[in-house]
Amino acid sequence: MKSKKLEHTEESTLKEFHDIRIRFNETDALGIVWHGYYLHYFEDGREAFGREHGISYLDAKAQGYVTPIIKSSCEHKLPLRYGEIATVETTFINTPAAKIIFKYKIMNAKGDTVCTGETIQVFVDDNNDLSLTLPPFFKTWKNKNGLI
Amino acid sequence: MKSKKLEHTEESTLKEFHDIRIRFNETDALGIVWHGYYLHYFEDGREAFGREHGISYLDAKAQGYVTPIIKSSCEHKLPLRYGEIATVETTFINTPAAKIIFKYKIMNAKGDTVCTGETIQVFVDDNNDLSLTLPPFFKTWKNKNGLI
Amino acid sequence: MKSKKLEHTEESTLKEFHDIRIRFNETDALGIVWHGYYLHYFEDGREAFGREHGISYLDAKAQGYVTPIIKSSCEHKLPLRYGEIATVETTFINTPAAKIIFKYKIMNAKGDTVCTGETIQVFVDDNNDLSLTLPPFFKTWKNKNGLI
Amino acid sequence: MKSKKLEHTEESTLKEFHDIRIRFNETDALGIVWHGYYLHYFEDGREAFGREHGISYLDAKAQGYVTPIIKSSCEHKLPLRYGEIATVETTFINTPAAKIIFKYKIMNAKGDTVCTGETIQVFVDDNNDLSLTLPPFFKTWKNKNGLI
Repeated sequence: MKSKKLEHTEESTLKEFHDIRIRFNETDALGIVWHGYYLHYFEDGREAFGREHGISYLDAKAQGYVTPIIKSSCEHKLPLRYGEIATVETTFINTPAAKIIFKYKIMNAKGDTVCTGETIQVFVDDNNDLSLTLPPFFKTWKNKNGLI
Repeated sequence: MKSKKLEHTEESTLKEFHDIRIRFNETDALGIVWHGYYLHYFEDGREAFGREHGISYLDAKAQGYVTPIIKSSCEHKLPLRYGEIATVETTFINTPAAKIIFKYKIMNAKGDTVCTGETIQVFVDDNNDLSLTLPPFFKTWKNKNGLI
Repeated sequence: MKSKKLEHTEESTLKEFHDIRIRFNETDALGIVWHGYYLHYFEDGREAFGREHGISYLDAKAQGYVTPIIKSSCEHKLPLRYGEIATVETTFINTPAAKIIFKYKIMNAKGDTVCTGETIQVFVDDNNDLSLTLPPFFKTWKNKNGLI
Repeated sequence: MKSKKLEHTEESTLKEFHDIRIRFNETDALGIVWHGYYLHYFEDGREAFGREHGISYLDAKAQGYVTPIIKSSCEHKLPLRYGEIATVETTFINTPAAKIIFKYKIMNAKGDTVCTGETIQVFVDDNNDLSLTLPPFFKTWKNKNGLI
């Protein structure tokens, strides 16, 4: 039962939109953004979310935790080219587990979905130990946002 | 029935081991490799596989096809640090669909699994059209390797 | 005499200020931005200059020219760390030669100079030939800006 | 007199040749290696030199010093394309100053010079202080190699 509950995830209403401009150095010899750069864009989106909602990497660090990524995925629908402006939509996915899950959707200027993806982060404390329960600061943050 | 068959994938015995040395510029402020760089290592492994088995990006290009990545994922178990030597194991996953699927496992010098991942590529022809069937050169390659 | 004139360069009054936010993935194991990323920041500044002053990479491309970099340099005074906001000052350096020269100065939030640098670009036309004289569109642009 | 001596640099006979293979993700929309990646190749060459001659980043670190780059430059003659094998020639430039200076020459498979460049590093000790004199371990290394 408990493990089943731990698997449960639910899209929250907390999201952030962040504009990016495609850099020349992010394109490859096909003239489109190299697939690996989308993880950079996800990071841009995640950071923008963190700054807006008070849960950035530096906020976690100030509380004695780092939050390494343990899983990432990206599914591509359309290419992006140099000079395009795209929008990263970053959505907080709620889970009772001691994890931070984000979903991402990148849209081009026409509003078409370019790609979707997900990252999962865990909490590692000052002793380099994986936190199996929610760190107090994160519990407080979730409470404040009606996520518990 | 047919659609089910199209979904079917099977690990082949075709694989390639490729050693990488972790560069200083691939580490981040946590002192470990930034998660996005693993897609670079997967590309190194995939290219080594292609050169060894005659199915590289340039081989496809010479036949009039490019093979963009439409999906990638990576699951992290252990960190890598600057100066470490790691091995990328790239395994060809057989599918009747017009796709190239690779699984990856990266191991550190002790043989511990650092991460696992997968990429899926499609075939796009000279007219920029997605190929819905196996391109002839790829069919030939699969036949030669007992994969059809 | 002529060659001497070609060597002549002069700082113009055309400049552009562009803010950047240091990404986590741009730091290295020392906790500071890896030196190679400053060329990315210079590109950000150069592109911002180009958009503002109508002389971007895409403007040149529309006129049948690409403008590869043939020389770049960077001198570091202070480090930048993750999360810092810095400003790239990009200054157009005037020369009668068929070159585009930019000087860069990156300043941190306190206004301290973090680094200085320079890039030199040339004009290559549709036939892949190096242009030894100013392309017409560039001459027009310089005239309009009182640089000839 | 002394300051003049500090400026003096001299190409040593200590050099290292290191082969690199151009990755797809290092190319840009022009189909050639993006200029910023040459600093990665210089790092590859510098590291290969360090491993061969016992003066790597990790050797310095073990002695309590980090060696940040304070200046880098690169001059481009020819492009490199995906799949090419190139050779980085890294040459130690001797100077009495408390600096590590390397010159680089990258050659393509035909032996043509693709680019040349230089990096200058300083020594920063455990207290984050710039070393104004040669650290003992570096003096020993130079002596052993007939560079003092």
